[in-house]
Amino acid sequence: MIFRHYDIDNMSAMENRYRTKFINSLSGFKSVNLIGTQGLDGTPNVAIFSSVVHLGASPALVGFIMRPDNGDRHTLENIMKTKNYTINQVSADFYQAAHQTSARYERDANEFDKSGLSAQNIDNFNAPFVKESRLKYSVKLKEIVPITVNDTLFIIGEITRVICDEQAIQPDGFIDIEYLNTVSVSGLDSYHTTESLSRLSYAKPDLPLTILNTNGTIKV
Amino acid sequence: MIFRHYDIDNMSAMENRYRTKFINSLSGFKSVNLIGTQGLDGTPNVAIFSSVVHLGASPALVGFIMRPDNGDRHTLENIMKTKNYTINQVSADFYQAAHQTSARYERDANEFDKSGLSAQNIDNFNAPFVKESRLKYSVKLKEIVPITVNDTLFIIGEITRVICDEQAIQPDGFIDIEYLNTVSVSGLDSYHTTESLSRLSYAKPDLPLTILNTNGTIKV
Repeated sequence: MIFRHYDIDNMSAMENRYRTKFINSLSGFKSVNLIGTQGLDGTPNVAIFSSVVHLGASPALVGFIMRPDNGDRHTLENIMKTKNYTINQVSADFYQAAHQTSARYERDANEFDKSGLSAQNIDNFNAPFVKESRLKYSVKLKEIVPITVNDTLFIIGEITRVICDEQAIQPDGFIDIEYLNTVSVSGLDSYHTTESLSRLSYAKPDLPLTILNTNGTIKV
Repeated sequence: MIFRHYDIDNMSAMENRYRTKFINSLSGFKSVNLIGTQGLDGTPNVAIFSSVVHLGASPALVGFIMRPDNGDRHTLENIMKTKNYTINQVSADFYQAAHQTSARYERDANEFDKSGLSAQNIDNFNAPFVKESRLKYSVKLKEIVPITVNDTLFIIGEITRVICDEQAIQPDGFIDIEYLNTVSVSGLDSYHTTESLSRLSYAKPDLPLTILNTNGTIKV
């Protein structure tokens, strides 16, 4: 195996699109989620994000990174006005439609129609869910943290309602998102399904790990 | 398909460990990375994180979430003292050793020895790499952003050197981390390898997507 080394100068010298693809590959596999919002006039918006990250379970908090200077702008404007949004996991059967939402549509475009996804309104909540998604939740805005070092924003919200295909929910609370065919992304544009290695027991010093089945029982 | 709904009260009523596993499943597939640090006396430390997230390509920035009140404390102390750390992607052949680093070892324990991973020192950089990792990089601390809503920290750094198995680097800059057998995690403890669906072209309004091969060429 031959390792290639790149220092800061090597990275600076990379052609822009090359560097974007290269650096985007470094963090590992990323989550793929559609964020649903609507304007005050009810115009629905949906956009794909690969930066949704778990922040805490109690309260249930989730964050994601936004770049206000590009296509994320409509999503940001809507969230600041309505204070609510939805996050919807993307399954393999609609990953191409999800990717299409990243195109830079005009302000009044309905990305659901453009991409072929279906908006789903539930109990008059003021943000649309993605009907095709098998694991989705509503989120209430809690805080927008400016990341000054590169003018991005870290958007933090509390999960207020979870909607999930009940077949995926395991006895110990774990949700089998592989069963839901949830995809992940590497780099900017490479989509993947998964194959389970195993679950592992809670690690303790000086004790060997136990291999677990998907349902949390010990693998024998 | 039957969907189950959970509101805030349902989530609050969940037993603690059940809720932790449930909420941790919501964000989707997460990256798996080992973060290497050392104390001022040179004691190496390595710990697993599932919250590393891409922040920007130019400058090359990466962030991750820390919980100072639990096992992440040693990593945090070291980063604050030395200002440097390494991030190392985890491959399927050592995911169990990587998971073992999450055990709460004593301050002076060497998690490399405890888990069976190998520390790799390169050019006197003051943080250890993980020898087994096929894609790893050094990071210089730029900013620690407090997330006041749940007392976590968002640690932001600039990528200063990348070391990667050259076989994975594609002609357009994309790194094929599936070829590296990089794993992802869902929930707290479920590890997965991946299977590629496709790469997709940059999305544009009113134009169909093009399916791409891993090397960036058009799939025919």
